[in-house]
Amino acid sequence: MKARVIVTLKNGVLDPQGKAIEGALGGLGFAEVSSVRQGKVFDVELAGTDKAAARTKLERMCEKLLANTVIENYAIEIA
Amino acid sequence: MKARVIVTLKNGVLDPQGKAIEGALGGLGFAEVSSVRQGKVFDVELAGTDKAAARTKLERMCEKLLANTVIENYAIEIA
Repeated sequence: MKARVIVTLKNGVLDPQGKAIEGALGGLGFAEVSSVRQGKVFDVELAGTDKAAARTKLERMCEKLLANTVIENYAIEIA
Repeated sequence: MKARVIVTLKNGVLDPQGKAIEGALGGLGFAEVSSVRQGKVFDVELAGTDKAAARTKLERMCEKLLANTVIENYAIEIA
């Protein structure tokens, strides 16, 4: 089973990398860009076919390793 | 307008970071994980309301800055 986990910074958490990209896009002439925030995506392949069980496992993976839940949110999409 | 750009490695491109995460998940007891590949996500805020124009702009941003199209694919989602 394929799943995608998207980890993004919580609102209010500073994102210097996003700010740098925002500045670089401005410098390249993309003046319409008002904000960029960068996050991470994990494409995970899992054994088994039980989607509910997979979601539970993925939540535990996020809590334990993939996301820093103090400053990051995560979203799980199961294909 | 809010848009999300997801940049992932093309198939066949080595992903040592993903492999390390895969190994770490295995070490934490998540034996059902067979593969992890890591990518990047950019949450971009754009001025304007024309979705087609925004998509064109975002494609140009990906080609110029956000993705290395030699080794990476990108997908654009406009909210």
